[in-house]
Amino acid sequence: MKIYRFRYRKKIITGVLKEDVLFPIKGSVFKDFKIEDSAIPVGEVKLLPPVSPSKIVCLGRNYQEHAEELGNDIPTEPLIFLKPPSAIVGPDQAIIYPAMSQRVDYEGELAIIIKKKVKNLKEEEAWTDYVLGYSCFNDVTARDLQLKDGQFTRAKSFDTFAPFGPCLVTDLNLEGLHLKTFLNGKLVQSGNTRNMIFPVPFLLRYISSIMTLEPGDIIATGTPAGVGPMEPGDRIEIQIEGIGTLSNVVKKIDMRR
Amino acid sequence: MKIYRFRYRKKIITGVLKEDVLFPIKGSVFKDFKIEDSAIPVGEVKLLPPVSPSKIVCLGRNYQEHAEELGNDIPTEPLIFLKPPSAIVGPDQAIIYPAMSQRVDYEGELAIIIKKKVKNLKEEEAWTDYVLGYSCFNDVTARDLQLKDGQFTRAKSFDTFAPFGPCLVTDLNLEGLHLKTFLNGKLVQSGNTRNMIFPVPFLLRYISSIMTLEPGDIIATGTPAGVGPMEPGDRIEIQIEGIGTLSNVVKKIDMRR
Repeated sequence: MKIYRFRYRKKIITGVLKEDVLFPIKGSVFKDFKIEDSAIPVGEVKLLPPVSPSKIVCLGRNYQEHAEELGNDIPTEPLIFLKPPSAIVGPDQAIIYPAMSQRVDYEGELAIIIKKKVKNLKEEEAWTDYVLGYSCFNDVTARDLQLKDGQFTRAKSFDTFAPFGPCLVTDLNLEGLHLKTFLNGKLVQSGNTRNMIFPVPFLLRYISSIMTLEPGDIIATGTPAGVGPMEPGDRIEIQIEGIGTLSNVVKKIDMRR
Repeated sequence: MKIYRFRYRKKIITGVLKEDVLFPIKGSVFKDFKIEDSAIPVGEVKLLPPVSPSKIVCLGRNYQEHAEELGNDIPTEPLIFLKPPSAIVGPDQAIIYPAMSQRVDYEGELAIIIKKKVKNLKEEEAWTDYVLGYSCFNDVTARDLQLKDGQFTRAKSFDTFAPFGPCLVTDLNLEGLHLKTFLNGKLVQSGNTRNMIFPVPFLLRYISSIMTLEPGDIIATGTPAGVGPMEPGDRIEIQIEGIGTLSNVVKKIDMRR
């Protein structure tokens, strides 16, 4: 099932896509909901980020070739960092190039969206019970500031540095999903989720052994090889098999205030 | 004005303290509110964290002697990192010592609570318009994991690693507030907010040039010298002049699930 969050006639609505038509849901995506009959034409909505998380937990170096391309060792434990919810933008919203940076990179990733509150998930528990679905995520990074600070936070926390969408997909087999990133239509990343160093069930157990995950929280599972810079005017697209394409353009001037 | 958030007869209430009695407010602390007449006895409430933030932005190395005690250079720019909202606990709640760590430190800090949404705060703007108040904060840190990971996130993100309170104080002169930390009653940190390398107005401009700050967001302004380890059973108290004392005990077993 493909679930979209969108604005339609000044209302924020969550709906399910069936044969190119959106059907609003009644209830909560995290609990029980019914699909209503009143169809909404896809062409008349503005897509929003699929959920509004209390936190975004990201993985560094979770694909071997990406760890190597940045000159890092293959980790023996997951390396986590946080992005603030204020960095989120939806499909087609602009990524604003900050004045502070001279090098802003794309990083295409598979995002996991949490369904139910979870702390200390155990090996014998069904991890899928805690996952609402999957989406595309762009872990935009000011590479120059990341190298300068050592800590990743500033480099990865600018407003608009967490594009996320276009929808969330509730049922996906993670064993072998192609993940592709296109910069102005040119293929720049081509990975497969089966090559994660730490797979999703492991990540859920690991992260939930540190912090309580809340409904709507996002885990961005790391980027494959091929990261590189974007320039103002560029279009960046993250495409994951079974989900769709997250597309955003890069702009230089901050018009948001 | 001292504002407390607390549970009283199964309700969550925000109230103002006057002569040892709490008076509930009507409205929002972030906007306009009136103080009601119905007094609530302090002895019958359970204190909660003063606000519920969308993010917690922390400063590393913002006091010279603390930077030196951990063997770091004095920074020329602020070093920021994030703690997740899931790490927050209120006054008197336990700090849970994680099984993953053998070295958990206290770090007493002054916290700033944001009043109004702000992006790109300018030099000529009145920064105090964007600040709701001040509180005590303990940036609890698994020092061994911080050194192991390089990135601070895991070490600082465990549930209960962000004790915060006991109240927020709306009017404070930041030029020279004593900050003291007591471990089992013994003074272990003694600093003064006038010795911040980057003072509060500078931090607000710097952080808001990176990310939008939302009402309720917390900025933890860094710890002075004297950080050190806590053991299960210890009581840790952060005391700031004009605010009060944030007191928590350390426990070993995670009973939270």
